[in-house]
Amino acid sequence: MNDPSRVAVVGVTGYAGFELAKLLLRHPHVEKTTFFLRESHADIHCLSELFPQLRGWGDAPCRVLSVDAIASSGADVAFLSTPHEASLELVPQLLAANPSLRIIDLSGAFRFGRAATFSEWYKLPAPDAKALRLSVYGLPELYADRLPNAQVVGNPGCYPTSVILGLRPLIDAGWINTSRGVVCDCKSGVTGAGKEPKRDTHFVEVNENFRAYNLFSHRHTPEVSDHLGLAFEDFVFTTHLLPVDRGILSTLYVWLQSPRQAHEVEALFRDFYAGRPLVRVMTAGKLPELQYVTHTNFCDIGFALDSTGDRLIVVSCLDNLGKGAAGQAVQNFNGMLGYPETAGLL
Amino acid sequence: MNDPSRVAVVGVTGYAGFELAKLLLRHPHVEKTTFFLRESHADIHCLSELFPQLRGWGDAPCRVLSVDAIASSGADVAFLSTPHEASLELVPQLLAANPSLRIIDLSGAFRFGRAATFSEWYKLPAPDAKALRLSVYGLPELYADRLPNAQVVGNPGCYPTSVILGLRPLIDAGWINTSRGVVCDCKSGVTGAGKEPKRDTHFVEVNENFRAYNLFSHRHTPEVSDHLGLAFEDFVFTTHLLPVDRGILSTLYVWLQSPRQAHEVEALFRDFYAGRPLVRVMTAGKLPELQYVTHTNFCDIGFALDSTGDRLIVVSCLDNLGKGAAGQAVQNFNGMLGYPETAGLL
Amino acid sequence: MNDPSRVAVVGVTGYAGFELAKLLLRHPHVEKTTFFLRESHADIHCLSELFPQLRGWGDAPCRVLSVDAIASSGADVAFLSTPHEASLELVPQLLAANPSLRIIDLSGAFRFGRAATFSEWYKLPAPDAKALRLSVYGLPELYADRLPNAQVVGNPGCYPTSVILGLRPLIDAGWINTSRGVVCDCKSGVTGAGKEPKRDTHFVEVNENFRAYNLFSHRHTPEVSDHLGLAFEDFVFTTHLLPVDRGILSTLYVWLQSPRQAHEVEALFRDFYAGRPLVRVMTAGKLPELQYVTHTNFCDIGFALDSTGDRLIVVSCLDNLGKGAAGQAVQNFNGMLGYPETAGLL
Amino acid sequence: MNDPSRVAVVGVTGYAGFELAKLLLRHPHVEKTTFFLRESHADIHCLSELFPQLRGWGDAPCRVLSVDAIASSGADVAFLSTPHEASLELVPQLLAANPSLRIIDLSGAFRFGRAATFSEWYKLPAPDAKALRLSVYGLPELYADRLPNAQVVGNPGCYPTSVILGLRPLIDAGWINTSRGVVCDCKSGVTGAGKEPKRDTHFVEVNENFRAYNLFSHRHTPEVSDHLGLAFEDFVFTTHLLPVDRGILSTLYVWLQSPRQAHEVEALFRDFYAGRPLVRVMTAGKLPELQYVTHTNFCDIGFALDSTGDRLIVVSCLDNLGKGAAGQAVQNFNGMLGYPETAGLL
Repeated sequence: MNDPSRVAVVGVTGYAGFELAKLLLRHPHVEKTTFFLRESHADIHCLSELFPQLRGWGDAPCRVLSVDAIASSGADVAFLSTPHEASLELVPQLLAANPSLRIIDLSGAFRFGRAATFSEWYKLPAPDAKALRLSVYGLPELYADRLPNAQVVGNPGCYPTSVILGLRPLIDAGWINTSRGVVCDCKSGVTGAGKEPKRDTHFVEVNENFRAYNLFSHRHTPEVSDHLGLAFEDFVFTTHLLPVDRGILSTLYVWLQSPRQAHEVEALFRDFYAGRPLVRVMTAGKLPELQYVTHTNFCDIGFALDSTGDRLIVVSCLDNLGKGAAGQAVQNFNGMLGYPETAGLL
Repeated sequence: MNDPSRVAVVGVTGYAGFELAKLLLRHPHVEKTTFFLRESHADIHCLSELFPQLRGWGDAPCRVLSVDAIASSGADVAFLSTPHEASLELVPQLLAANPSLRIIDLSGAFRFGRAATFSEWYKLPAPDAKALRLSVYGLPELYADRLPNAQVVGNPGCYPTSVILGLRPLIDAGWINTSRGVVCDCKSGVTGAGKEPKRDTHFVEVNENFRAYNLFSHRHTPEVSDHLGLAFEDFVFTTHLLPVDRGILSTLYVWLQSPRQAHEVEALFRDFYAGRPLVRVMTAGKLPELQYVTHTNFCDIGFALDSTGDRLIVVSCLDNLGKGAAGQAVQNFNGMLGYPETAGLL
Repeated sequence: MNDPSRVAVVGVTGYAGFELAKLLLRHPHVEKTTFFLRESHADIHCLSELFPQLRGWGDAPCRVLSVDAIASSGADVAFLSTPHEASLELVPQLLAANPSLRIIDLSGAFRFGRAATFSEWYKLPAPDAKALRLSVYGLPELYADRLPNAQVVGNPGCYPTSVILGLRPLIDAGWINTSRGVVCDCKSGVTGAGKEPKRDTHFVEVNENFRAYNLFSHRHTPEVSDHLGLAFEDFVFTTHLLPVDRGILSTLYVWLQSPRQAHEVEALFRDFYAGRPLVRVMTAGKLPELQYVTHTNFCDIGFALDSTGDRLIVVSCLDNLGKGAAGQAVQNFNGMLGYPETAGLL
Repeated sequence: MNDPSRVAVVGVTGYAGFELAKLLLRHPHVEKTTFFLRESHADIHCLSELFPQLRGWGDAPCRVLSVDAIASSGADVAFLSTPHEASLELVPQLLAANPSLRIIDLSGAFRFGRAATFSEWYKLPAPDAKALRLSVYGLPELYADRLPNAQVVGNPGCYPTSVILGLRPLIDAGWINTSRGVVCDCKSGVTGAGKEPKRDTHFVEVNENFRAYNLFSHRHTPEVSDHLGLAFEDFVFTTHLLPVDRGILSTLYVWLQSPRQAHEVEALFRDFYAGRPLVRVMTAGKLPELQYVTHTNFCDIGFALDSTGDRLIVVSCLDNLGKGAAGQAVQNFNGMLGYPETAGLL
């Protein structure tokens, strides 16, 4: 077993950051976690002062955020659970201050091979070219081999994780008739919309309600395109807001190139995810449900095939804060440091 | 204005039946409503004994259900909010006992032109041929002209109402490239699943959960096919259970035959639904939400068009107990009797 | 029947104001409703521009808010669904500008006989002395006789309405042993907390959560004291936030002076509320539930008596936007104008 | 550290049993867990066949339930998460078959010192006298010293745990003026009502609803009386159903014998629970919320004191499946076997 690690966490006040804190505080191979908070929280010295619900459960020191403080903290890995803008700046600064520091960034800033893709969809400056060259897209089920040497990991978006994991086996096998179009209809709980109070996330506006949002403009679209190799005109990706705290369920529609039987589809998925403990393929005839993945780091995948074997629906479920954010970040961390893939995640 | 009517209601113990009761009890052109209950409720003489929440609000006499009692009750119209099996038997019996009685059936029994379609999808005997010949599919926005002379109305399913209203203008205009496939991803609240306690509708199994169900086998599928003229192999219709009491939101995906602009799409819908007060077309750029149609009898329709004008998403929303069941039944009643379309519905 | 009225509504952007709008737009004795909006909404000319969900349902003109505009609008009655601060200013200004205008104020500003009570609990200036002298506390089940001549009505708080209606019959009968203390444990849905997005009403902070708030400091406390005649040291009034949109359930605990039987308690409540159609007394052994009063203007009252007849629990339920706010305002309006008490409310 | 244990679990199909399974499957001092299922589940050989959500997470063998099978299974401790009737029979049978087996019973059968109390409140036969003599009430914060030698532990009810922990420090200190009455107003999530589908727990009957139930007749009442030493006539204990999955919040009202200051109250609680890691006393001025205890094994306790120091409200929160059931059972297990109190619980 590799040596234990020391980690720094920047940004713990959002939902994903707090989930990350809870995972790291009980990770068996993390020997020290330090949290870095904005100047406005300079009076906070340990995490339970900020989150009383951690009293008696887990705690860790908090320090004021600065590039120097992080770079010189002795941390092997820094997790950034920060806004895109902050990550854009912090990643190159941290690499400059401490070239041996490794970074897992939960924002969108380092998820795209082409810097212009980020700029276009996020309406923000391009990420630093050198930092981007050092970065990999952290979806371990597809790119685990790149993690051991990765300096920077762009942790995937929650929606793309569910869509890409649900369709990639079919794409790689060449089973999909993409000329008929691929439809990805995704639904997410409200933690995905962040912790900032807004009209759209006011209890009364979400409870007993349901709505689609950001049609044809959601910033997670290019991740789906990049990692499924689908041209924008050949798929539709939509997002809806569910009146639940956590979880994403994606219903994915494809027409097959040639008719298949259910056992073939199940076998394709099982083979693809053999040895990947955090993706669970359902038995043919069983569909995943949100309730079985919330508060876990699993992605559950099931499917339904029409009687002619032509039309296939894949249903992919995960917890947007687990496999969709903090859990995946820890899974990437495990891959980078050589720990077991599920360490701290079951 | 036509004369007021007397109506009979069979089946008030389900969610749709109770909603119907509330609508009829305050309908301006209904002068008498009588409720017919099973023998086991023979001790109930007025509706508020069964539903205490009606005390001080509205009330009506209850009688023991029998074909003779209904046929001889003086009712002009009988609403059947009964299981498919019961409607299959009651409709021909009532017509035989009182040939001038008109019937609005909320079950699936009289929704299909081909008797075999019903039998195949519902696994039940075919509806009586003569009664079926006398019946029309009660979607007033499409078939209002058939209502004045209809003896039997098969009140549409909740999901098909939302899907058909959302796509029919595009179908009729020939705008859809059906060779690319049409995807209808529908989500419904729990009243759509009935009032009978089941594991699947236990609070803990629905709350903080979301799931797809009956993929490729939902019995509402042939209604969609019949009234959109789509071959089964060219569309997919799916249903999901939302953790809310009421409401259906359908996200409908089509590829267009040729590129369109948003104002053209809006104009197509507005023209199609001109003079139909219970369908509300949203301004381009605005999408409907469940919260604006629950506890109403409206169907709200909005859309999003991709920048190339090729891919179109239509979002259609209604209350499954309102426009999706009881409200539509009253709208059909208004059409049959010559009352204003929205009487008792606003 | 009295003549129809013209009304002005100031403040329609909150939950209570919007509920009021919907009630007034279909009130049978209101011939014209004009809405007055802040300068920032000067571009809004009819209500459905602000609330698209009103399209096809009801609509009314909107004008820019000013004292003169309201005073000269021809309105017989002005409803103020405004913040306490705004009502404090508007009421005397409106009375000065149009001495015949009658006002129903939904804020807390004119609910207290003693101006100092308001100032002390709301930390705001005292209401205008003259306007206060012209005002009555608008709880029609207790003070209906004061309404016909009232110039200003202070519309009660939602919590106090449920508590006072639940306990007043027992207080008036002298049945309560107040030396043992009276406990009023109240729970409310989130619309009671207003429409402004705040951390405390963010979906994720309310959903799957429950909490007490404002213990010993809730501003509704003195209304309870005033109208039950209870000294502060002899009762406790608490408030909790339920993860639902609407509704208040108050559980009220008293020890009786001498043992009673259930039929006596039921008779006491029935006699007290005889002829008051918007309070529904449950049969002994039945308890009210939130679901039977939401979206209505009823207050339902039930009770449980212990086997010795000494300890009594009263359960009082209402919709905080209905009988707890807008519905009660309309009930007061009916009383002021001589319309039937339930006009527009069933 | 003591040796690891082998445990048997009877009854895993309810919510508490499943929660217990999850805790035991990752308990650091449990080396083997065997689940015993009814004959009807004889085809189930490992737990993940029954609960697919355990795939990839934890698993354990299942065997058909019989007294002999449990007694001879090598288990040191048997957890019974069974109905009262089953526990009444199983406990003496298991003790007869294997006198060294130790039992933690989550039902109500062995919670009362007086057998007649159980019979009277549960309308069931009295528990076996000998087994009852060997049993202790498993509330570790009060009776930890009895656990090491306990043969049978009656695991407390969820409501009583929250009420007793919230009031016992005040009772022991003699601070409460019981002649004024003590009111315990408790609210629980739906998992407390069990997994069996019933009308009362149908989603639509719970969602957007709230209600009191079992007033003056809840079977948890005598536990409160027994362990607070309160005569039935001096307190009221009520229960309400919250539209959430998990959690209990109890609002506890007392009048004090003499005025106190907040720091005194806080000190009393802190001293009482010093060294008890699973009760967290809030700082004066802070109140617990359901969200901070769900999915944990903590009981959080806070309070509010009125400005005169006479009236005190204690708020006590826990997860009904955690500290209110399965978590407490594991805490008792730790106490019986000499493991650290929080082993497997943080």
